[in-house]
Amino acid sequence: MNNTYVTIMAGGVGSRFWPASRTSKPKQFLDMLGMGKSLLRLTFERFLPLCPAENIYVVTNAQYRALVKEHLPELSEQQILCEPSRNNTAPCVAYAAFKLHQLNPDASMIVAPADHLITKEEAFLSRIRMALDFADGKNALLTLGIQPNKPHTGYGYIQFRSPATEGDVHEVAAFTEKPNKEKAQAFLDSGNYLWNAGIFIWKTRSVLQAFQDYAKEIYDILEEGKSVYNSSEEQAFINQAYPSTPRISIDYAIMEKADNVYTIPADIGWSDLGTWDSIYQLLQKDQQQNAVSGVSCHLLDAKDNMIHGAKDKLVVVKGIKDFIVVDDEDVLLIYPKSDEQGIKQVINALKENGKEHYL
Amino acid sequence: MNNTYVTIMAGGVGSRFWPASRTSKPKQFLDMLGMGKSLLRLTFERFLPLCPAENIYVVTNAQYRALVKEHLPELSEQQILCEPSRNNTAPCVAYAAFKLHQLNPDASMIVAPADHLITKEEAFLSRIRMALDFADGKNALLTLGIQPNKPHTGYGYIQFRSPATEGDVHEVAAFTEKPNKEKAQAFLDSGNYLWNAGIFIWKTRSVLQAFQDYAKEIYDILEEGKSVYNSSEEQAFINQAYPSTPRISIDYAIMEKADNVYTIPADIGWSDLGTWDSIYQLLQKDQQQNAVSGVSCHLLDAKDNMIHGAKDKLVVVKGIKDFIVVDDEDVLLIYPKSDEQGIKQVINALKENGKEHYL
Repeated sequence: MNNTYVTIMAGGVGSRFWPASRTSKPKQFLDMLGMGKSLLRLTFERFLPLCPAENIYVVTNAQYRALVKEHLPELSEQQILCEPSRNNTAPCVAYAAFKLHQLNPDASMIVAPADHLITKEEAFLSRIRMALDFADGKNALLTLGIQPNKPHTGYGYIQFRSPATEGDVHEVAAFTEKPNKEKAQAFLDSGNYLWNAGIFIWKTRSVLQAFQDYAKEIYDILEEGKSVYNSSEEQAFINQAYPSTPRISIDYAIMEKADNVYTIPADIGWSDLGTWDSIYQLLQKDQQQNAVSGVSCHLLDAKDNMIHGAKDKLVVVKGIKDFIVVDDEDVLLIYPKSDEQGIKQVINALKENGKEHYL
Repeated sequence: MNNTYVTIMAGGVGSRFWPASRTSKPKQFLDMLGMGKSLLRLTFERFLPLCPAENIYVVTNAQYRALVKEHLPELSEQQILCEPSRNNTAPCVAYAAFKLHQLNPDASMIVAPADHLITKEEAFLSRIRMALDFADGKNALLTLGIQPNKPHTGYGYIQFRSPATEGDVHEVAAFTEKPNKEKAQAFLDSGNYLWNAGIFIWKTRSVLQAFQDYAKEIYDILEEGKSVYNSSEEQAFINQAYPSTPRISIDYAIMEKADNVYTIPADIGWSDLGTWDSIYQLLQKDQQQNAVSGVSCHLLDAKDNMIHGAKDKLVVVKGIKDFIVVDDEDVLLIYPKSDEQGIKQVINALKENGKEHYL
């Protein structure tokens, strides 16, 4: 029996890639890098060397059940966990942990976001295996820590202790919020800070213990259903109980409080694909440093642009520099690349003006 | 019996408005100004006070027959003249003249392009009536001359003699090619130059006489079919004979050579809608001088732009100035407005690269 289970978190709405990503079809269901597969599909396939497909579970919002089935036809109905409400990551992890634990009390559980990129798959798998081995014998909560290569201010950081406890497994000293530029540079220079990528490894029994210790309300609400997980009554119970769980992240609820948290520094070609610029950085560029995904382009006097659209579209551009151009069915966005944070305000303005149907 | 007939020239491919206008649906079939009607339809309706719909004929390319029927369902099959080849305007006018003359030897004929704008309809109709009256009694060829309001270098000019021969009808002294800036200014200052708008008024007998005198080859080729015009054999004759007519404009073939040419200065709110900038000038602008047609827009720090697309499209733009943005199904164009002549080269490049399907 394979005790390794994977829980892919695929409930996000991915508004940062609007209009390529929409509420009705967020980022994890898109092929953001033109690789021929959605990010969810890539994430699923990344874990297949570790366990059979029937051990891979997806937690998503109820509205995306059909999309998950479409992208991962290997999954049975019961491998798709549907949140009836968006309650952040802690209730979501607790739900999956209860369910897997009911299935197999000796389950090891990997939690991973559906919409990140990992290019060094072998390195990734070897780190995950090391974490599984470490977690197997003891009550430990592990988080993969990404080796930072620049003083990024958009991520939380993990400070780890040295020497390692075992192999490359280090005790976590502290989690930190997103730092300012100076602090981020200091973290990078110190050599004992990693990026928090939201990839966790633990036994279900360990994480459930942690919920009981540090997030008792979530534990109590979801523990009530322990006799119905993996039965025909599971969804009805979740629909009734889940919305009342506190809305809190797994980091706040558990990781920052527990004293049995470990990390493994990992150099795995990771990107959270969190901004258009991160996509731009990863794509191949032409001689004028334009990155084009999807569309055919005819570019004149155009430089440093990120151009994204459907495969059958022709985009003719002259005379713009450092822009994001995204054409997606009923929305066209032409926006300075250096200013992409502002797109959030556009989205808010559209909401206020009754134009949600474009989101 | 109403002797007044109209021939609308609707065979153009309108490549200057690509990608809004395509080979498969050129400008005359589009609602370029958001008026709710195509330019062809507007042209047709403009003439209805002068004659019944059954006196209005459209000359077009064979490939646009169905589009003409769609936009002008009032027309019978025999009111749509289909050129089997594009041979410029002289053969086209001769074909229509022969056909109308066979129908009614006392026909008066107005020739007008399908894709121009005329905003002062009453003034237009009174000028046309004056021209019809003048042409009726004598062998005269009339062309409406547009009162110039700036030293435009994109039009041919008509120099007229004073005093008027009768009413506002003046003898034409000369037709001139598109002038340079200085010459255009001198024309404007002199007060006796008008823009040549390609709107002609004459008896069919007068224009056929002119073809016989000045464009004998066209006359001879199309005169051979005089027994089949308005019969079931007309199209077969045209398909065989028309392609061999010399490819020449009515201006070169007749107007510049004939000595019985007259003009009427007309202030009729005319625009040939020949460039994106001319459309931009006519459209309402927001406070930042952006003109938007079709699409919904959310504009930030955007100025002097011309934005055109389908009604259900949302266009979000930040940080561009003086651009043309045209989104049309499978093509998106982002191009400096001051440089729109360059779009022709884009079209040529697409042809050379086997991308005609975008044209």
